Amino acid sequence: MAMTMTQKILAAHAGLDHVVPGQLIEAKLDLVMANDVTGPMALPIIKKMGTNVFDKDKVVFVPDHFTPNKDIKSAENAKAILDYSNEQGLTNIMVQGKCGVEHAILPERGLVYSGMCVIGADSHTCTYGALGAFSTGVGTTDIAAGMVSGQAWFKIPEAIQVRLTGKLPRYVTGKDVILHIIGEIGVDGALYKSLEFTGDGCGELSMDDRFTICNMAIEAGAKNGIFPVDDQARKYMKNAGVESWEEYTADDDAKYIRVVNVNLSALRPTVAFPHLPGNAKTIDEVEQMDKIYIDQVVIGSCTNGRLSDLEKAAAVLKGHKVAPNVRVMVVPATQKIFLQAVHEGLVDIFIEAGCAFNTASCGPCMGGHMGVLAKGEKCVSTTNRNFVGRMGDTESLIYLASPETAAASAIAGYIANPEKVGGEH
Amino acid sequence: MAMTMTQKILAAHAGLDHVVPGQLIEAKLDLVMANDVTGPMALPIIKKMGTNVFDKDKVVFVPDHFTPNKDIKSAENAKAILDYSNEQGLTNIMVQGKCGVEHAILPERGLVYSGMCVIGADSHTCTYGALGAFSTGVGTTDIAAGMVSGQAWFKIPEAIQVRLTGKLPRYVTGKDVILHIIGEIGVDGALYKSLEFTGDGCGELSMDDRFTICNMAIEAGAKNGIFPVDDQARKYMKNAGVESWEEYTADDDAKYIRVVNVNLSALRPTVAFPHLPGNAKTIDEVEQMDKIYIDQVVIGSCTNGRLSDLEKAAAVLKGHKVAPNVRVMVVPATQKIFLQAVHEGLVDIFIEAGCAFNTASCGPCMGGHMGVLAKGEKCVSTTNRNFVGRMGDTESLIYLASPETAAASAIAGYIANPEKVGGEH
Repeated sequence: MAMTMTQKILAAHAGLDHVVPGQLIEAKLDLVMANDVTGPMALPIIKKMGTNVFDKDKVVFVPDHFTPNKDIKSAENAKAILDYSNEQGLTNIMVQGKCGVEHAILPERGLVYSGMCVIGADSHTCTYGALGAFSTGVGTTDIAAGMVSGQAWFKIPEAIQVRLTGKLPRYVTGKDVILHIIGEIGVDGALYKSLEFTGDGCGELSMDDRFTICNMAIEAGAKNGIFPVDDQARKYMKNAGVESWEEYTADDDAKYIRVVNVNLSALRPTVAFPHLPGNAKTIDEVEQMDKIYIDQVVIGSCTNGRLSDLEKAAAVLKGHKVAPNVRVMVVPATQKIFLQAVHEGLVDIFIEAGCAFNTASCGPCMGGHMGVLAKGEKCVSTTNRNFVGRMGDTESLIYLASPETAAASAIAGYIANPEKVGGEH
Repeated sequence: MAMTMTQKILAAHAGLDHVVPGQLIEAKLDLVMANDVTGPMALPIIKKMGTNVFDKDKVVFVPDHFTPNKDIKSAENAKAILDYSNEQGLTNIMVQGKCGVEHAILPERGLVYSGMCVIGADSHTCTYGALGAFSTGVGTTDIAAGMVSGQAWFKIPEAIQVRLTGKLPRYVTGKDVILHIIGEIGVDGALYKSLEFTGDGCGELSMDDRFTICNMAIEAGAKNGIFPVDDQARKYMKNAGVESWEEYTADDDAKYIRVVNVNLSALRPTVAFPHLPGNAKTIDEVEQMDKIYIDQVVIGSCTNGRLSDLEKAAAVLKGHKVAPNVRVMVVPATQKIFLQAVHEGLVDIFIEAGCAFNTASCGPCMGGHMGVLAKGEKCVSTTNRNFVGRMGDTESLIYLASPETAAASAIAGYIANPEKVGGEH
């Protein structure tokens, strides 16, 4: 029976030779993660079970959403997961100022890699599919059970094949790819299905592009997103210190309920308008409209806070100034990325242009802190969701875009085409 | 009739030849400042007066306390002062990510200087006395009236002379000087008096030391703190773009109600224990006690977020790692200082040591954000107040110290003597 990548990984973790869509399985977990929002909700459930975590190497808590501690409640939450991590003697203890955003720090530290079965109490856990892992977000009860038992149940998902061909033009990135796809299939277009990326175009995408694309698979409702493992992915994992991993490849006759063809060469910078990630418009469509003046730009998050994202934004901003009344929040996804950005001279460029450069955090993405929006304010953001009130007041408006489009908009003061600003990268 | 520096500045701004302590005067204001906490409270009062600001060059609003916007309320407040600054066409419009903490950005931009009479709706407005200005914090009603009328009433303060001799030993800084003084005279030791610094020791203090010392004059209850203007101060002002200023010197026979002698050479690194800035202990006394283990270190604020503060802390941290469970929040006081810290390689040192490096903000100083304390947590902080609950939970504990003592403590994991860590500066 032919299987997709996702189906093969799940079958292997359930100790089965094959699985079929809809089948319920109990899978062994290779990593179970929670953050400072979901971890403190899971802890009382874990403690009620009255036991230790199933494996000290395979459970990790990341303080990232409301850290550096935004308020007393955040401080209590961060303290709760740190105290528990110490109590349990976890191998990987994450401390504020020394780590970063969960979905960036786990790949960076080599804690997630090809062939793994990973759950995280955060919807964007699907990010690790970029490395050929099955990873998905679950609720706090499932996380608590997973941390204690090392297992979770899944319904084997059907799959949508996303066939990538061509090569991205300059100023078009992974973010534009995924916004385009969600625009095509809709925010529920992949509901409980795996988005399996295939085709020659995969190899043309950088790892950071793939992380961005898998990160937002959930925004189409997908259970997970996954890329085949190639030399780029192998190199990434080796650099992250991963010594060995399993690789799974979809069978040639694996069954997909739908095929979506994407010619990367034909894509344009794309912006998702309020209030859904699927409300995608190309920059050319935007340019036909009245100018959309903005108050804030955010460059960062688990979606677009990686080094190449900062490099691209900085290349656009270099030698320019942020528009007078616009504020720009740059938030690298990890402290290592922050340091690399310093070394590459990117921080210089951002600050000289008039941007704030913050310590690694989820920051303003979910209206947490570091750039919350007031009533009526408009923001171009490289984050993943533009739901009503996501980043602040329910009457604020969020436009999702790539780091380059965000940077171009910061300079212009309205949503702008990065092709028309220039810069080098 | 002999007068002190403060008395002379106030007399000149009231159009009087001389004044005496206790006299009520109406003084012309050279600068009136409010922030994102006090500005939005002043605006309705100003609007009730139904008029414009008295001078577009002399009114400034600085968004620094809860910026980058911590939450919706902060966002509304920051928007209110930005909108009003634009409406009034103010000369100096401060936008998040492009400025810094009020008491650092105003001197840096040359907006405050010798001989001025300045009020700010923030208690640490007394900072600018380092440049020989009279500056003091007032409430929002007075700020509103000051913004509209360009005047404020004052009761001429009596003065305490602080006679500085000697030269600071290595690892002893302006912060230790002011903590020592407050320890000597108490937190109400200078109530409604001016602290007038005199003596050869003044010239031995860097400008940053003087800013720190004047900044905390209010912690002894002082109306203001003020240093004589010397070549160092003149150089600072010229570098900040100030073209001309008035200099005032105290009369030789000016009357002081008290003289406090401080031999800088004899001072030791000093720590203010909870819950008062006057609860000062030398590091030698601290070393005699049981170790005080800490959870967080803060290096920054209007008190100690200047470049030399970061340089000193980085010199201690260089080549070391922050203790495992300790988190360190470094918050430069302005974006320019951030950039300088990048250029000097300080940010590298902080991040490699395991510190968070944040964008300019008041941050955790007043429990705002960027490092709020949970119940029972202990923090060594370079900020200015260790009142109950100031930085978070009412059961958290704050120990005020210099950047070097803070850095040494970060490495040790408990309050530690910077002399015993080493490093260069």
